[in-house]
Amino acid sequence: MADQAYAYQFRVSLHDTDAAGVLFFAHLFRHAHDAYEAWMGELGFALDEMIRDGGLALPLVHAEADFKRPLRHGDLIRVEVRVDELRASSFGVGYRFLTDDGILAAIARTVHVAVRPGDSASRVLPDDLAATLRSRLDSSAQRRPAETQT
Amino acid sequence: MADQAYAYQFRVSLHDTDAAGVLFFAHLFRHAHDAYEAWMGELGFALDEMIRDGGLALPLVHAEADFKRPLRHGDLIRVEVRVDELRASSFGVGYRFLTDDGILAAIARTVHVAVRPGDSASRVLPDDLAATLRSRLDSSAQRRPAETQT
Amino acid sequence: MADQAYAYQFRVSLHDTDAAGVLFFAHLFRHAHDAYEAWMGELGFALDEMIRDGGLALPLVHAEADFKRPLRHGDLIRVEVRVDELRASSFGVGYRFLTDDGILAAIARTVHVAVRPGDSASRVLPDDLAATLRSRLDSSAQRRPAETQT
Amino acid sequence: MADQAYAYQFRVSLHDTDAAGVLFFAHLFRHAHDAYEAWMGELGFALDEMIRDGGLALPLVHAEADFKRPLRHGDLIRVEVRVDELRASSFGVGYRFLTDDGILAAIARTVHVAVRPGDSASRVLPDDLAATLRSRLDSSAQRRPAETQT
Repeated sequence: MADQAYAYQFRVSLHDTDAAGVLFFAHLFRHAHDAYEAWMGELGFALDEMIRDGGLALPLVHAEADFKRPLRHGDLIRVEVRVDELRASSFGVGYRFLTDDGILAAIARTVHVAVRPGDSASRVLPDDLAATLRSRLDSSAQRRPAETQT
Repeated sequence: MADQAYAYQFRVSLHDTDAAGVLFFAHLFRHAHDAYEAWMGELGFALDEMIRDGGLALPLVHAEADFKRPLRHGDLIRVEVRVDELRASSFGVGYRFLTDDGILAAIARTVHVAVRPGDSASRVLPDDLAATLRSRLDSSAQRRPAETQT
Repeated sequence: MADQAYAYQFRVSLHDTDAAGVLFFAHLFRHAHDAYEAWMGELGFALDEMIRDGGLALPLVHAEADFKRPLRHGDLIRVEVRVDELRASSFGVGYRFLTDDGILAAIARTVHVAVRPGDSASRVLPDDLAATLRSRLDSSAQRRPAETQT
Repeated sequence: MADQAYAYQFRVSLHDTDAAGVLFFAHLFRHAHDAYEAWMGELGFALDEMIRDGGLALPLVHAEADFKRPLRHGDLIRVEVRVDELRASSFGVGYRFLTDDGILAAIARTVHVAVRPGDSASRVLPDDLAATLRSRLDSSAQRRPAETQT
């Protein structure tokens, strides 16, 4: 079965680093979100249009990352993006950060819940988005995809 | 005559620095804006309320900075904020960044123009804001304060 | 028994927010790290001196956060910082983000491992740092503090 | 005569924007520096190698920007980078930010001075860098390029 990963690339900028000489950890999440934005746009769900339309928002309720190797200034990083969980009102996205020579430098994960903007209650994912995410669901993901509540 | 400067303080964080070991220049503007926000709140014009009210916006049309000494991780920085120009629809704010031992490390300047949100045309500054800024106008500012057009 | 939490405060700035109107999630980690830096300085282990001395580094190997309520522009946030895990070569720090009216808006956690700068292998925590962290260890932390390997 | 501009592109991310719905001004400088880094790498003077080598640093001594049109979430921005001034120890770089439909949304400028790392005194630009910058010097630049002091 085909790998469902979307590939995104970025180069570690000077402003990504800190006085310790390597990427400041919080900036990994910024890059993860850039990869998520690019991927959602590719899937037909551009975040800027979603925010302007005002019918659906997908705020993050969880984020996490593990840092295995330092990311250095100038490094060209490949980010693989995968759906790793799909529920009625939320979904999880996994990110793998690989250096130029294929070494896994970091992994990250974000969980997004569907809400109506200005409303704190969750809603079910729209059918078209749920179908698209389901078709991209990574069947090898460690997390058991469960299409149940929340 | 009393000095009209407002004083704001911050410490240079690890994430403010880059691999060259000193504050990354663009972050000076972030700190300048934090000082501007704190000062506007003190003057009774909190930006968050202004944005939520939706009647007035004060977008930046110009920003500049001169860097004289490196700002280092851990440095405690005092920012002096002054009105240095007042016009019918806009105003200029000057910032001086001083290290703990009183050395001038950087200066910055921002110019803000009054607009109605969602409208690109400028409007005159509201009377109360103009009066407040006038009372804080730095008479020693090099820039000739002119209460004329734009 | 006394609560071992250290309290840090910040106000949600305009640049912390995004077009969706609330704090952009990655900036929570920046604020968590600011709280961590202030706390370490208070404990006598200022990060800037540590980086300049070059004998010990405490890079992050893990970071995570749960977002419960949106943090809005202008909100005054209290961050409680606690040691929630202590091992031979690493420690965990927990953060609780509370709004002005005491509502828990977010929690975060970072794990730091002791290394010699420029060396990828971990080392044991220096005695004075380990003792200080032990004295602050949150005995009610859900995570079982274990003073064992790594 | 051929235009000496280097072209760089970026898309305005969610985290570039603020609660006012448009790019937060300080982030324009971050993107300008990303364009500068990409351009310097293309010219054969990759900043990451320069910082690691430790023989030459090119810190910013001045930065400025004028904001003409709001940059919105999702906008694809083309940045044109040009040398607009060349002196014995410093050079100026101009940036034009154009939207997808060719509208000039912002301009920026940075001035870099050559120093030996850890030394506050300026030094002359290395011959190869000076020659490369001279070949890219924008003859139509408003600023009179003067190959004189500082």
